[in-house]
Parts: sequence; C-alpha cells; structure tokens
Amino acid sequence: MDFAAELKRHVASVAHGLDLHLPPATTRPTRLHTAMRYSLEAGGKRLRPVLVLATAELFGHGSSDPLPAAVAIECVHTYSLIHDDLPCMDNDDLRRGRPTAHKQFDEATALLAGDALLTHAFGLLAERYAAQPALAHALIRELADAAGSRRLVGGQMEDLLAEKKADATPDELEFIHLNKTAAMIEAALVLGGLVGGADPRHLATLRRAGRHLGLAFQIIDDILDATADTATLGKTAGKDAQADKTTFVKLYGIEASHRIAAEHTAAALGAFRELPGDPTFLHALVQNMAVRGK
Amino acid sequence: MDFAAELKRHVASVAHGLDLHLPPATTRPTRLHTAMRYSLEAGGKRLRPVLVLATAELFGHGSSDPLPAAVAIECVHTYSLIHDDLPCMDNDDLRRGRPTAHKQFDEATALLAGDALLTHAFGLLAERYAAQPALAHALIRELADAAGSRRLVGGQMEDLLAEKKADATPDELEFIHLNKTAAMIEAALVLGGLVGGADPRHLATLRRAGRHLGLAFQIIDDILDATADTATLGKTAGKDAQADKTTFVKLYGIEASHRIAAEHTAAALGAFRELPGDPTFLHALVQNMAVRGK
Repeated sequence: MDFAAELKRHVASVAHGLDLHLPPATTRPTRLHTAMRYSLEAGGKRLRPVLVLATAELFGHGSSDPLPAAVAIECVHTYSLIHDDLPCMDNDDLRRGRPTAHKQFDEATALLAGDALLTHAFGLLAERYAAQPALAHALIRELADAAGSRRLVGGQMEDLLAEKKADATPDELEFIHLNKTAAMIEAALVLGGLVGGADPRHLATLRRAGRHLGLAFQIIDDILDATADTATLGKTAGKDAQADKTTFVKLYGIEASHRIAAEHTAAALGAFRELPGDPTFLHALVQNMAVRGK
Repeated sequence: MDFAAELKRHVASVAHGLDLHLPPATTRPTRLHTAMRYSLEAGGKRLRPVLVLATAELFGHGSSDPLPAAVAIECVHTYSLIHDDLPCMDNDDLRRGRPTAHKQFDEATALLAGDALLTHAFGLLAERYAAQPALAHALIRELADAAGSRRLVGGQMEDLLAEKKADATPDELEFIHLNKTAAMIEAALVLGGLVGGADPRHLATLRRAGRHLGLAFQIIDDILDATADTATLGKTAGKDAQADKTTFVKLYGIEASHRIAAEHTAAALGAFRELPGDPTFLHALVQNMAVRGK
C-alpha cells in the first residue's frame, strides 16, 4: 500500500464532499455561506473525515456512502475551531496559516458561521441517509453525544475554567483531553463503523481505539505547541506556555509525554488489529500522526 | 374550553419537560449545565413548545410523547437568543426581565451554553424517539432545516447586515422575518404534526399556518418595540428606533402594520380550520398573541 497515495485519495474525497455537501457560497445570505466555506476550505489535516472514510472501507462499505458522514464531522470540528478562536475564547488570529474567521469577516459572522456549520452537520446526516432512517438516527445520536455538553462543549468549558486557575489537576486535564479532543476522534471511527455496518462489538473496539488515538493526538499537540514554531504549526505556537496553561508537557515533562503518547498510539494500533479488513492504511495514518510530535 | 387553564397546563408540561430532558445542573462541567438551565428557565411565553404540544394533541397523539420535541425546539430557540444577545450581535443586557447569559456568567460560558443547547436539541430527538427511527429522523430533518443557514441563522445574518445599511428593502425585511422568526414557529407546528402522525397534506397546512403566524408574531413584536416600555417587554424597548433599524413599523407605519398582522393572523386561523381535531385552543392562543400588539 502506498500510504501517501491513499491519504491523498481520501483527502481529495473529503475536498470533493465538502464542496458537494455544503450550500453554494452564492446561497442567500452569501456572506454567511462564504464564511462557512472559508473556514471549511482552510484545509488542515482532515484527520477526522479521513478516519471516517478509512474506517468505513475497513468494513467494506457497500450500500452506504460514507462521505456525508465525513463531511458532517468536519463541519462540527470546524465549527468548534471557529468558536474556539473567538476573542471571548482563545482569541486567536491565525488558524491553518490563514486569518481566523472573525479576523477575515467579523465576530458576528464567525459566530453565525459556526452555528450554521453545527446545524448543517445534523441536517446533512438526516438528509443524505434519509433512505436508511435507522442509520441516520444512529449517526446523529453518536455525533450529538460526542459534540454535546458532556463531551466536546464540556471539554471546551473545562479547558477555559482550567486556564483561569493556577494549576489544573491531572484529573481535569484528562477530562479536557478526553472530551475536547478524543470525543470527536472516537466519533469519527464510530461513524465510519456505523456506515460500514460494524456490529456492536466492533463499534466498541472502534470507540476504544478512538479514545487512545484522541489522547495520543492531544498529547502530541501539547508537545508541538511547546517545541515547534508558528510557521510549522500554521497557528500561533507557544501559546500554552505563554498563558501558563496546564498541559501534558507542563504536568509530566517532554520525555514522559512522548512515552505516554506512544503508549496510547500502541493501544490504538492494537485495537485496530481486532477489526476485520485490512488495517494497513489506518496503522500508517496513526504512526504518521505519532511521528508529528517527534 | 378554559383557555387560561389549558395554557397553564401546557406551560407546566413544558417546565416539567425542560427539567426532565436537560442534564442536571450538577453534571460536569457544572458551570456549563447551570448556564444552559439558567437561560432555559428564564421563562418567556413558551410559545414554540406550547405550539408543539397543542398541535400534537390536535391530531390525538397516541403512541408518541410530544414533550421531547417541545423541549428540543425550546432549546434551539433559547440558543438563538443567547447568541443573539452577545456583545458581537445585539449586545443586550436584559432578556425576559433577567440579566442575559453573558451578563450573568461571561461571554465564553454564554457562547458554549448556546452551542450545547443547539447540540442537545438534536441529541434529545435522537435519544427520545429512538424506538421510532423514522419519526426521529423526520423531526431532526425538520428542525435542522428550520434552524440552518438558509433559515434561522440566515435570518440572523441578514438582520445584522440590514442594520448596517441606511435602509433595508421590503424584500430584505421579509427574508429576515420569514427566517429569523417564522422558521421556528413553522417548525413548532410541523414537529407537533409529525409527532401526532399528521399526513403530508396536513403537514403542508401546518407549515402554511406557521408562516402566517410567524409573520404576524414578528410584526407585532416590531409594534411592541415601538410602543411598549422595557418593564412590560422584559427586554430593552425602543431599541429598533434607537438603532434606526428597518422594521415593519418604520416601513409601513403603525396602522398598516396592525392591519397586515391582522391579515396574517386571520390566514393562520383559516388554515387551522382545515385541520382535524378541535382547534379551539390554537385559535385562542393565536388571538391572544394578536391582542398583545394592540
């Protein structure tokens, strides 16, 4: 398997899907739809939608197209970034190497573009899987749980509260990582499994793999923030240390952070081996991700 | 029929449903769940959820409980108010006679509480109608359409753009009213119809009634902003004139606004007469609403 070619194929599918499954920028009001597309098209690694597509393929998806599910999860991820970048949150000017939505447009437009992307994710799942209401229902339920007040939004809230305190505890940090980051990685694998027709046992394995993958991903992110520069990251580097934010690196140091990330990566790879199909691409994707932090 | 008693019964159901179908305030993170409940429990007329319950009863809902649908629509309505009140939007300090969410908590908490309520609405529908995936699917699709970038959020965006211009056109004003206000009133009637098992013809009638009702409601709101005081409204009065905002009253004058609102009210009442069941309560509710503006 040529990993780079496979990744390119999936990323191209995602780009196609985003164009296909979002309202045209010419839709009234055009400013809103332009802003939605601006943030979605800024790029990024497309990790979550690629995970949806690769997981669905693992189960040999025959009847259902995984692309709308991949687009839906990227819409939710992008909404969370737009809102997270707002002045009342992280107040970041740069995202994926481009001005953040509220810098490119204005705060109100960014707020509404985020709201619209979140809503669109659910509408898209309902519309595109209309022929299979039970599948549509399962996908929506999974996404709403992962994005909800106990998980994604809860993680954002706890993250903000932790920033205001002198020291966050390991328990708080775990809550933040599990919910702010791992929830959507888990959801990506589970959505892919649902579209691919995975049975409950395999869905549970996917959820476990996603949890480890998400934790590894966030720890690597913390390491990168502490060690890489802004140009490499495409977003402002060193923000965590500057804000004296509690991160994995601050709590455990760089060495132990590398080690713990490697443990989670290995656990995710182990889980993938329990699944049917050829996990070669997913393995390579995870290892590629893990290498980022070195 | 004792209208006041019936209304009280429905409003009590909604209050019960909100408590039952929202995560407890003690759910981690408590600040987020407290803020969600603060805004939901601020009260208001509960027009949208009462419309869901009354419409479902019209069709003699037997098998399905309309309460989760009623709660879901109130969650979406409340999220839109929280975000609309933020400093980057309408920057309002008072809502339903209490400090707005960002005044009571802070901007970030208000932003996240709105995000969480929107997400919860979809999760709630998926969870509570799990035994009827086709119904869950139809409810979610309707709500996502009504709340999406072409309707509710689109109406908010167009409203903001209109405020920045010297004069909004009648076409722009209609777009705003149809989408910022009428979309969710329409959705309330359609959700009630779906839970009650209405056929496609009756669903179309409900949609038409909702459109007229929504337009009447918004025109009456414009009239009230121009004529009532802050204490009566429970929100800052006279904001439209102060901002030189284009409203129905500014475009057509008080007299014509009353007349057009009355026409829409009559059209909604006419549509209700085409439906099965006893429309006495819905008639009284609409007339009660229309009287507000006198």
